[in-house]
Amino acid sequence: MVIEAVYHRPKLNWAYAYDGKTVHLRIRTKRDDVKKVFALSGDKYAWEKTSEYIEMKILTRDALFDYWEVTVQPPFRRLRYAFLLQSGKEKLWLTEQGFVRKEPKDSTGMFEYPFLNPADIFTPPAWVKEAIFYQIFPERFANGDRSLDPEGVEPWGGKPTPTNFFGGDLQGVIQNLDHLTELGVNAIYFTPLFEATTNHKYDTRDYLKVDPQFGTNETLKQLVDECHKRGIRILLDAVFNHCGKTFPPFIDVLEKGASSPYADWFHVKEWPLRVEDGIPTYETFAFEPIMPKLNTEHPEVKAYLLEVAEFWIKEIGIDGWRLDVANEVDHRFWRLFRDKVKSANPEAYILGEIWHDSMMWLQGDQFDAVMNYPFTNAVLDFVTNGKLDGAGFANAVGSLLASYPQQANEAAFNLLDSHDTPRLLTQCGEDKRRMKLAALLQFAFPGTPCIYYGDEVGMSGGGDPDCRRCMEWDASRQDRDLFEFYRRLIALRTSSEALRTGAVRFLHAKPGDARLALERVHGNEHMLILVNADRRSAKLSVKLSHERVWTSALYGAAVAAPEGGKLQVKLPPYGFAVLRAE
Amino acid sequence: MVIEAVYHRPKLNWAYAYDGKTVHLRIRTKRDDVKKVFALSGDKYAWEKTSEYIEMKILTRDALFDYWEVTVQPPFRRLRYAFLLQSGKEKLWLTEQGFVRKEPKDSTGMFEYPFLNPADIFTPPAWVKEAIFYQIFPERFANGDRSLDPEGVEPWGGKPTPTNFFGGDLQGVIQNLDHLTELGVNAIYFTPLFEATTNHKYDTRDYLKVDPQFGTNETLKQLVDECHKRGIRILLDAVFNHCGKTFPPFIDVLEKGASSPYADWFHVKEWPLRVEDGIPTYETFAFEPIMPKLNTEHPEVKAYLLEVAEFWIKEIGIDGWRLDVANEVDHRFWRLFRDKVKSANPEAYILGEIWHDSMMWLQGDQFDAVMNYPFTNAVLDFVTNGKLDGAGFANAVGSLLASYPQQANEAAFNLLDSHDTPRLLTQCGEDKRRMKLAALLQFAFPGTPCIYYGDEVGMSGGGDPDCRRCMEWDASRQDRDLFEFYRRLIALRTSSEALRTGAVRFLHAKPGDARLALERVHGNEHMLILVNADRRSAKLSVKLSHERVWTSALYGAAVAAPEGGKLQVKLPPYGFAVLRAE
Repeated sequence: MVIEAVYHRPKLNWAYAYDGKTVHLRIRTKRDDVKKVFALSGDKYAWEKTSEYIEMKILTRDALFDYWEVTVQPPFRRLRYAFLLQSGKEKLWLTEQGFVRKEPKDSTGMFEYPFLNPADIFTPPAWVKEAIFYQIFPERFANGDRSLDPEGVEPWGGKPTPTNFFGGDLQGVIQNLDHLTELGVNAIYFTPLFEATTNHKYDTRDYLKVDPQFGTNETLKQLVDECHKRGIRILLDAVFNHCGKTFPPFIDVLEKGASSPYADWFHVKEWPLRVEDGIPTYETFAFEPIMPKLNTEHPEVKAYLLEVAEFWIKEIGIDGWRLDVANEVDHRFWRLFRDKVKSANPEAYILGEIWHDSMMWLQGDQFDAVMNYPFTNAVLDFVTNGKLDGAGFANAVGSLLASYPQQANEAAFNLLDSHDTPRLLTQCGEDKRRMKLAALLQFAFPGTPCIYYGDEVGMSGGGDPDCRRCMEWDASRQDRDLFEFYRRLIALRTSSEALRTGAVRFLHAKPGDARLALERVHGNEHMLILVNADRRSAKLSVKLSHERVWTSALYGAAVAAPEGGKLQVKLPPYGFAVLRAE
Repeated sequence: MVIEAVYHRPKLNWAYAYDGKTVHLRIRTKRDDVKKVFALSGDKYAWEKTSEYIEMKILTRDALFDYWEVTVQPPFRRLRYAFLLQSGKEKLWLTEQGFVRKEPKDSTGMFEYPFLNPADIFTPPAWVKEAIFYQIFPERFANGDRSLDPEGVEPWGGKPTPTNFFGGDLQGVIQNLDHLTELGVNAIYFTPLFEATTNHKYDTRDYLKVDPQFGTNETLKQLVDECHKRGIRILLDAVFNHCGKTFPPFIDVLEKGASSPYADWFHVKEWPLRVEDGIPTYETFAFEPIMPKLNTEHPEVKAYLLEVAEFWIKEIGIDGWRLDVANEVDHRFWRLFRDKVKSANPEAYILGEIWHDSMMWLQGDQFDAVMNYPFTNAVLDFVTNGKLDGAGFANAVGSLLASYPQQANEAAFNLLDSHDTPRLLTQCGEDKRRMKLAALLQFAFPGTPCIYYGDEVGMSGGGDPDCRRCMEWDASRQDRDLFEFYRRLIALRTSSEALRTGAVRFLHAKPGDARLALERVHGNEHMLILVNADRRSAKLSVKLSHERVWTSALYGAAVAAPEGGKLQVKLPPYGFAVLRAE
């Protein structure tokens, strides 16, 4: 055994409470190196009576490692544990003190999960597992109230520039909720709605006021109420890392300098505020002078932003927050934020914008989820960028799933595009077959899928600002086949516990091979997703572990009934099939 | 290169802020597998201008791995980074997305330390690095006020049983402070002082009152003031995981059952409270019915305990808390506790009793340090238990130092014995030579050393209750040579920045070899500790990296001046030498 490859350290994604009674233990070994792994666990004060070996199963794998997992229910909320690794006749125990070749006599040197305290259990809102999100960039979704149009507004459907306006507003969203209901989504994520100067509104002027170009706080309240009636939840964008240059406290500092009562609301490196060689003398988002970084350690700033967080939940009824540039704000602030938000609404969803490894924010004290860009990359690299083969894709998502506790994976925000990236269809080379494969994979994984407005009717667009085109409302220019595909995909996921929370198993994922067979399993429900990410048609033969009656669950390639435990299918270029057994 | 052995994940002990300007990056590789490692780091928004390769150094090693470290000062408080591993002609870059054989074109897929926020920087009190602790079990240190003696008190010096009393009290400590001053310690850790029924007082009755057998709150205030005048700080024991059976809220629950207003202060599994087959129907410490676990998630319990934490700091002036059974209490409570304690006294020391891996409590939001029992074990296993040779000892402490951020290592509480273990001398088979070696290693490592009362005058004692004998005050029965040794050891450490915070380098640490050469380096100051943990005398030849003038820093074996960069020494059985170069 390659013992240097073995990894375990208590807590985080390796030993965590899944609920009030259950601890998940995981350990990593070199891929294909260890045959069997057991957890040896019990109560430290009653070791003789309670300790037992429980066999672990492979949770996921990646290019280098197997990740093993086991579910343990500690008899007295405390857990001591070690691991037994077996390969052929070789037996090795791993305790906190290292590897030993003999069974440990007692539990003294073993690992500990000291006590299952409810306060420390990471519990994202249950509804997130069931949610299908739809992202709206409000300036571009629908113009429902011409009286609010900003000066110089351009005709709907024009070419977006970094600075132009088309008059989208909240009334436009209210008027088009039937579109969302028909599609089947049950949650909306809005990019910023608060008063600001730009079309994207990431430069907040007033955190307590809907931008007059979009409507009023009352319009938003009306929108939230309308959505709630339809079972649609609302997530707003909290831009707390930085404000806009028109935020009154910043204007005050610009005017009065160090003597401003707001001087400590910002991170001033050198007075007076200025920009030298492109670098502001105060901290900003990137080096952007119009986005001064807020000092979230200052008591007044904390109090103000926490009031903002609470206001929109309590007064307007929103269901959660998406946090812009979340990882550049201090952890202490986010802990206070979570307490404030969850006490206003225990079911509120807290979603951080982090593009990188996010374990340190997903322990139950800060966020419920992050924007799952590593998943985005894996899907696009497999389906359209040609960077990953089937094995590469399975490895990438296998590694990702092993990186976080299960509840984090179940609440992950799985997007394929956004206002910050080219549109999905454009990334797929305008090939709707490939786009459908990407969407299918998106809906076939744990985590809440999010559709960027207009993708469902076939909108294209390159990087910002081209990805922010006006929503296509002309039915004759909408791709209704694509819409129907998304509608069915949503309905399928909504009907399938396996797709939402089932175990993930790759039945076919090989190097140099663009075919993929993925199974999701929950209880007796099995979903089988077969994908051919190649421009040529391909046969795929999948060995099934159990004899079951499989039926087609989504229109796709025809599949013959399995024979002798083998399922044979011919998939067209960029084709797929989805089967279900119950 | 064995890439499966490589490990890095942002934050914790792998990428952390050491201070407001400095980030430490670490990476692990298989031992002796990789020749050179570089960090490639810069600002993500100015990558071209700021990125650079910085060579990493081996921080420590253990049996399996080399741990590399580098200090980086991000130009704009943000850090993107990757690693370059070199072995012969092989070059491998590690980014967050895995290994690549070509230099990454940009920083997109690299690791992130997103922003250096002061609020998240782990900053233990600076004085802890300079502290020498002395642990007092108050019932057994000195009887200074006979009027407080409990009924049935036994004559000083009798045999300890689990339940007897000898009348030790706070006046006794006050009267004997000269002993501590002469020894040179500058901090006292008291096991519990609050009112309780047992001799060890871990079953608290009243958290706001000094036990009448020890004195009054005023006596403690007087003691604290006397100590502060002598530059001695005071740490008290906070038993917040559980209370005693005489704690009034628990008595109320015993009497009134579920209708008691304090019913939720505890974790009741089944009413009425009782013990069945040795297992209480309420959560306790271990299965101990007289120690009911407190519900530290209950708002009233939280408020009460936080008031306690603040009271002794603000009213009595104590300098910190040692937290009993710290890992069984929820993390959320400890975060509130830290905020309360640090706002009462930013320089207060928070020390958790955790015997296991403690990374999750040492991130700056909870504790400053834990009781470093893994260090205890390494020293004893090397010096007296025969479980570790020189290499084994170096590996054990190497692994330990790599497990935590540097500031955690600098504030670690390095004890060799306590009221919970046999006395050091007894663990050393009553061999004072071995005891001295253990103490020397204790004082030669980062972290604050703690002497268990009486060790310095040669007291013996087996496990609890024998390790809790009355302090030996009869000068004729004290080992004054040992006292002198401890006095010099303390003086040496107090005079040596290298011993306190210098880098740790093993110059000689081999398998099957009980000799050890350890160097501590800070700036120009070098301390060389040479140890022979064998019952036979041994020659030791150490190659020194620089020509320096070495002088003996502590009495020990004679050492000839180095010749040709080599230092030769003959160490007697269980002998040592300590040399210094500046």
